[in-house]
Order: sequence, then structure tokens, then C-alpha cells
Amino acid sequence: MEFLVHIEVRWPADGDEARKAELVALEAERARELRDAGTLRRLWRVPGRWANVGVWEAADATELHAAVSSLPFFPWLEVDVSPLAEHPSDPGLGRA
Amino acid sequence: MEFLVHIEVRWPADGDEARKAELVALEAERARELRDAGTLRRLWRVPGRWANVGVWEAADATELHAAVSSLPFFPWLEVDVSPLAEHPSDPGLGRA
Amino acid sequence: MEFLVHIEVRWPADGDEARKAELVALEAERARELRDAGTLRRLWRVPGRWANVGVWEAADATELHAAVSSLPFFPWLEVDVSPLAEHPSDPGLGRA
Amino acid sequence: MEFLVHIEVRWPADGDEARKAELVALEAERARELRDAGTLRRLWRVPGRWANVGVWEAADATELHAAVSSLPFFPWLEVDVSPLAEHPSDPGLGRA
Amino acid sequence: MEFLVHIEVRWPADGDEARKAELVALEAERARELRDAGTLRRLWRVPGRWANVGVWEAADATELHAAVSSLPFFPWLEVDVSPLAEHPSDPGLGRA
Amino acid sequence: MEFLVHIEVRWPADGDEARKAELVALEAERARELRDAGTLRRLWRVPGRWANVGVWEAADATELHAAVSSLPFFPWLEVDVSPLAEHPSDPGLGRA
Amino acid sequence: MEFLVHIEVRWPADGDEARKAELVALEAERARELRDAGTLRRLWRVPGRWANVGVWEAADATELHAAVSSLPFFPWLEVDVSPLAEHPSDPGLGRA
Amino acid sequence: MEFLVHIEVRWPADGDEARKAELVALEAERARELRDAGTLRRLWRVPGRWANVGVWEAADATELHAAVSSLPFFPWLEVDVSPLAEHPSDPGLGRA
Amino acid sequence: MEFLVHIEVRWPADGDEARKAELVALEAERARELRDAGTLRRLWRVPGRWANVGVWEAADATELHAAVSSLPFFPWLEVDVSPLAEHPSDPGLGRA
Amino acid sequence: MEFLVHIEVRWPADGDEARKAELVALEAERARELRDAGTLRRLWRVPGRWANVGVWEAADATELHAAVSSLPFFPWLEVDVSPLAEHPSDPGLGRA
Repeated sequence: MEFLVHIEVRWPADGDEARKAELVALEAERARELRDAGTLRRLWRVPGRWANVGVWEAADATELHAAVSSLPFFPWLEVDVSPLAEHPSDPGLGRA
Repeated sequence: MEFLVHIEVRWPADGDEARKAELVALEAERARELRDAGTLRRLWRVPGRWANVGVWEAADATELHAAVSSLPFFPWLEVDVSPLAEHPSDPGLGRA
Repeated sequence: MEFLVHIEVRWPADGDEARKAELVALEAERARELRDAGTLRRLWRVPGRWANVGVWEAADATELHAAVSSLPFFPWLEVDVSPLAEHPSDPGLGRA
Repeated sequence: MEFLVHIEVRWPADGDEARKAELVALEAERARELRDAGTLRRLWRVPGRWANVGVWEAADATELHAAVSSLPFFPWLEVDVSPLAEHPSDPGLGRA
Repeated sequence: MEFLVHIEVRWPADGDEARKAELVALEAERARELRDAGTLRRLWRVPGRWANVGVWEAADATELHAAVSSLPFFPWLEVDVSPLAEHPSDPGLGRA
Repeated sequence: MEFLVHIEVRWPADGDEARKAELVALEAERARELRDAGTLRRLWRVPGRWANVGVWEAADATELHAAVSSLPFFPWLEVDVSPLAEHPSDPGLGRA
Repeated sequence: MEFLVHIEVRWPADGDEARKAELVALEAERARELRDAGTLRRLWRVPGRWANVGVWEAADATELHAAVSSLPFFPWLEVDVSPLAEHPSDPGLGRA
Repeated sequence: MEFLVHIEVRWPADGDEARKAELVALEAERARELRDAGTLRRLWRVPGRWANVGVWEAADATELHAAVSSLPFFPWLEVDVSPLAEHPSDPGLGRA
Repeated sequence: MEFLVHIEVRWPADGDEARKAELVALEAERARELRDAGTLRRLWRVPGRWANVGVWEAADATELHAAVSSLPFFPWLEVDVSPLAEHPSDPGLGRA
Repeated sequence: MEFLVHIEVRWPADGDEARKAELVALEAERARELRDAGTLRRLWRVPGRWANVGVWEAADATELHAAVSSLPFFPWLEVDVSPLAEHPSDPGLGRA
């Protein structure tokens, strides 16, 4: 099942730069793992914000929560999850 | 450039059923054309609602508006468009 | 997987009373079927409103949409679906 | 009487980890007590967030407040309480 | 248990005046009955609107719903119900 | 004239406990004085929150502001004031 | 006591023009009466909308409601009333 | 002075097509006149909606209201006006 | 041109009292100057809040911004500005 | 393609004044560069706030994000981006 996940990063403007750089690197690595596992399917930046929107695949909301909460930035994230149902006109149907 | 497009269909509950069926068929056909043109890339139902969320590709907002307003149901649609920027961790990058 | 489903009924105040009574009866019957199928697990009235909130069980959002849209009042419903993840402290865990 | 209770935990991202672990353990224990007392009937995680939604049973809002405010994390909680009325189609009616 | 109940009347501006007058009279009578039954304890107009806010007493949300939905204008009402818990500083405590 | 006053207490979760206890005691005393003065007529806890809703009596908004801003917790309060007009069906009319 | 009153006119776009003209004339006349009575003190158009914002004077919310609901357009109005308290720096203090 | 004006057109989906075409033509002509008068300086479509956002120039809000309310579609418009102040970094400063 | 200006003061509850008293005095003085300059015409307290609403006069939004941002508390203010257009029924018309 | 960009600056009221002055100077310089590059086309202050609204030109949302995130104040900015489509009545069409 797919989910639309909107993530805002609430890192403080005056936060520690070294810690931030470290977390950014870890986050990119975790994103690669989630991509390889087939969990993270698409990811975009919300322009002008430290925020992203993505299409995630998980068996259910429990598995999705495990994936999202595995992100190194998780304590600083404001996350909104929308469940997605199949649409008969979806060009992506049958292509996965 | 990709856009996230959220569409709610405001068709009246007591609307004409024959007209509705006709528009649904036309809408499915138009969706196929937009898919073939590479404009409509993903489409999901919002569960519980007559609504969908999709990933659309267009050169810019002008071309996107032309595509969305070509939908047969357009006069009954409430549409919200969010621009999407590339994210370096997007699994879909370089795959199109 | 469980979903929290909030439903408001937008039946017009001056709607046809006979049609309304017929739909109410059909809705109760459909609710019984969904209960028997294990889809509808709990259902409450929102006090003061023609609205309800329920706990629904479905394999995924696609199956949930099929269930919700099978309600006779569906064209008059405003529905909000929230996905639910398991909580380790849920008293209901392992009891279904 | 049942209540739908939505809880967001506003623990600071850079909060003390030892204190947090201690409170998490106390919270789980308190949840068990509330379950054994029949006060907490269902509990789910809101996916992607440090938040939960639950079905609580209490004689009235005063008793409910006593239960919620007994949670060790209470000073960090943002809580929304919705009263629930019985629905004739509730599968859970007569089962408690 | 007490509830704070906010009611907006969505009667159409061009609605039938005779029907409206009839319903207003019935509503006043029903309010008197609810007062006599101890259900309706206080009632105020929201200035500038066809709306009111009231303090209602009921055993639980189910009984409250029965009371509110017994109002003759119920099909035209938009109602929001907030549960109220006792406050140790309430001047009304012990006075009912 | 009566006012409906909703108050949320924004005391920091990690605030000083001794100072908080002192303010709580002062607040209860001030509430008693406002009750004796006939200013505070009813007061309820909003269940699940450090918040209350009350019915206040004051000659006008200026006098009401003086009363609310005399609360020891005032600098930490988020207050919303709604003016109340008499309703002919108010059970409390003529009883004060 | 003064109130800030925001009024939106919800007259239907395809409403009867003669009836509208008649009500506009009656509304202007009623405004003059309210001005002469000292009830309506200032009135502005909200630019771009059929809406206005005004400063009204009334003994209390009950008297204010009587004044606002005396407007010929009242059944079509969406009105929000905010109570105003005296400010020591108000240039208008002592000038009325 | 410049204003940012957001306009949504609330024309009914099943409105008369001939009347709509006539108003669209009149609206385009009025837009040309407002452009020639220097009142309408920029205008964009909000993609996906029958809506636009524009930069308008007027001596004050009164003159702006006269301009906006001169649009043939005015009775069907939902308009939000935001006043704009000069910014020292505006590339358009001194260019008008 | 007149503007309706709503100001909330976001001074921290545990802010320095001496600095606050100093700013309050400076603010009152600045308000007097703005009154004498004809910029600040009316000012009210929003009851229950450290907030005010005022009627300001300025040539345009640029001049208004200069006036508002000259307030000593400006860095702590949350300000919303609404432009006001003349209304033919304004009792204040022709009286300034 | 053009974008409407709304920016609120969330610099703390008690932030370091020297650092702020330095960033303001850098921001003005960056704005000049963006103007010279044709990226920033118009910029206004939102009166009463440390906020601005601007018309930006970029090939797509990715390029726009690069421009906005190059602002020295970026970590303190709350940014909302709206895509703009061409309108046939835009006075600016064909003038760039």
C-alpha cells in the first residue's frame, strides 16, 4: 500500500552546524536504504522550505511508522501521512 | 517539472446520473490521453472521498493549467496545485 | 490494518423524507454486513450532529474505499480517513 | 461513556534522553494500569508522529480528565477530547 | 455531566416565513421542556448571528444527542459539543 | 453583561515546580475573590488540557479585561473572550 | 461599550435585482438611524468584497444584537462581533 | 499604492453557458480598460482553478474597491485584498 | 487612507520586568506622538489578551509600515493589517 | 515561469543585533544579485510585519528553491511558494 508523506524539518535556525551536517549525511544514507528496500518510491523538495513530500510503500501504517521513525532527523520532524488508494486511471498501475 | 495535484469532485449528490456516467467515461479517456502524453504520471484515490491526488508533469504552470482544465469534470473540480522541486534522494531521479 | 473514519452526512435539511427513511434503513443493513465481514469494528455518533466516527478494518486503503463507497448515503457523505498504526500499549492488541 | 482522545507529545527534540526513557517506561506502566481499570480501551499510534489516538471509558469528563492528567508525560501533552455517543449500528454495542 | 453546546441555525435566508415562525414557536416550547427537565441550564445568543451557546446537563453524550436532536430545527443546525469537567474553583459547584 | 471566556495555560512543561505551585494557590484565591465579587459565575476544566472555560459577568469589556488580567497566571494565559447576549429561552434569566 | 463588527453579505449572485435595490435603500436608511442613535460610529467597506467592518456602540451584547438584527439584510448576513475594551492610549478617549 | 488581489470565480458549474461566455468577453474588455488606466499591472491564473492573482495600482482602498467591483463577474467573485508596501530591494522601484 | 491594525504582543511570560516596564513607557509615548501626528485615530484593547486593535491613518501601506515599525515593541509584535475603503454610510465621513 | 513567494522572517525578537545587521546587509546584496539575474522581479513589504511577498522567475521549482535557499536569512524564513500560470489579460505579457 502507498502513502503520501509530507515532512517538515523543524531544526532550529541557530542549531549546531556540525550536528546538522552529520544528520544530513545520515538521513541521505537512510533514504538510500529505504529506496533499496522499496519503501521510499518518490521524493520531492517542497520549494522554499526545508520540507519534502514523498510516496512511500509499506504493508500498513505500522510498517510505515517504523520506516519514518527510523529517519535520523525524526525527533525534529513534523510528519503528515495520507493513505492512498488505487485509482483505475493511475499510469503507474501494474508497472511496479 | 512535476506538480502534486489534489482534486476534489464537487458533483451534486442528486446530480443527473446519466450525465455523470457520461462524464466519468470521458474523464477516464482524457486521463489515458494525459498518461500517454506523459502529463499524468501517477494517480491515487483519496480513500473515502470522490477525490484524487496525482503527480503531473508539465513544462510550467501554464501548461499544467491547460491539462487540468481539459478534464471533462473541470467545472465541478476543486483543485490545489503544489509545485515540486527535485530532491537529491528521490529514487525516481534519472529513471524517467 | 485499522483506520479511523469520520463521516458527516450532508443530507439537505429539506430533503425528501421518504427517500431519507429508505436510505437510513439501507445504511443500517449495509452497516450490519460490514460488521459481519469484520470491516466495521466500532461506530459512534458524534453528539449533536448527523455524523459518526468509526474504527474500520481493511487490507489497505483501496479495500477501505470500496467499503466506505458502498454505503447507500455515500454521495452525501463528507469522509475523512486517518490511518492507524499499532501501539504497543493498545489493550486491544492480540484480542481480535 | 466513551471518549475519543487524540494526544500529541510535545517533548523537545533535544530533550534529555535519560529522562525521556524513564518517562516512556512510566507511561507504558500507567497505560497498563488504565487498561486494567477499563479506562483505556483501544490505543493506536498516529503514523509518522509521536502521537496517539485512543478510545477511553470514563463516567464523565471529570473522571476522564483525572485519567489523562495522571499520565507521566502530561505536562508535555497536547490533548483533544471528543465525546462519543452510542450508535445503533456499533458492532461493539452489548459486547463490553 | 455538563456540556458546552454551540449551535448555528442554517435556515435559508429566503426560507418560508410561515414555516420558520412555526418552528421558532416549537423550538421555544421544546427549550422550556428541556429547561424543566434540567437538561438545558443556561442559554445565550451569540450576538449578531442566528446562533446560541448553552450549558446542557446530560448523563452522557448519548443522552445529550437525544436532547439536541429533539429540537425542531435540528435538520438545519450546525452543532459543536464540548465536554466539560468539574473545576475546583467553579462557583456553581455544589449549588445545583 | 456575561462573557464566555476560554483560557489555555501556556506554562512551560519544564517550568519551575515551586513557582508553579505558588501561582496555582494564588490563582485559586483570586478565583474565590472573583466569585465573591460576582465576576466569575461558572468555571469548568477542558478535559485533557490545562485549560478552562468560564462564564464571567462584567459591566463591559474594560471591566472584564481588568478581571482576567488580575489572574496571577495572566502572562502565561492564552485567552479568548466571546460576548454573550440574552436569549429569551435562557433558564437562568431572572434568576441571578 | 464599543464592539468591532465584521459583516459579510451573502446575497446570491443571481438574486432578484429589484429586491436587492430595495434592501440596499432600506439598509442605508437603517444605517442613518443607527448613526443618529449613536449606535453606529464608524463604518468601512472591506475592499473587493460586499462586506463591511464597523465600530458599534451599545450598552451590552443584547442591545448590540438588537441593533445588528434590525438590519434589513440580516437574514443574508454573516456577522462576527468582537468586544472592545478601553485602551489608555486611545486618541478617541474622552472625545465622544 | 499597490495591492495584491486574489480572485476566485464562484460561477456555478451548471451555470448558463451563453451568459458565461458573454461575461468572459466583457471581463476581458474591462481588464483591458483597467490595464490602460494603469490600475491592473500584472495578472496570473492560479493553475488548476478559475482564479487569478494580480497586482493592482490605486490611490487607496476606496479607489481599488471601485475598480474591482466594476468587473462584470463581481457578484460571483470571492476577493481577498492585501496591501503592499514598498521594499527597498524591489527591482520594480523607480521603473514604473 | 485608513487601516484596521490588529496587534498581538508576543513578549515572553518570563521576560525581564524592568525592560518590559521601560518598553511600555516608550510605547505609550510613541502612541501619543502617533496620535498627535494624526496617524493613530482609535485604539482598543482586545479583552483578555495583551493585544490591541486600532484604526490608523496613513498615505499608503509604506507610510503605515513606517509608523507600525516605529513602535518600541515592534520586534515582539504580530501584526495584521487590513485596508479600509470608504463606506457611504460611515458616520465618520466628512467629520475628520 | 513565475512564482509568487511569500516570506516571513522568524528572527528572534531578542536575537543578536550585530548578527542581524550583518545578515540584513548580505540579504540586500543577494537580492540585488537575484534581481540582476532576472530571478527576482518584484518585491514588496507586507505592512506591519517583517515579511515580504515577491514575484520570482525561475525555470522550474528546483531552480526557484536554489534561489530562495541562497538567501542569507534562509534558516529563519517561513516560505510559501505559489506557482503562477499566464493569464491572457496580463498587462505584463510580452513585455519582459
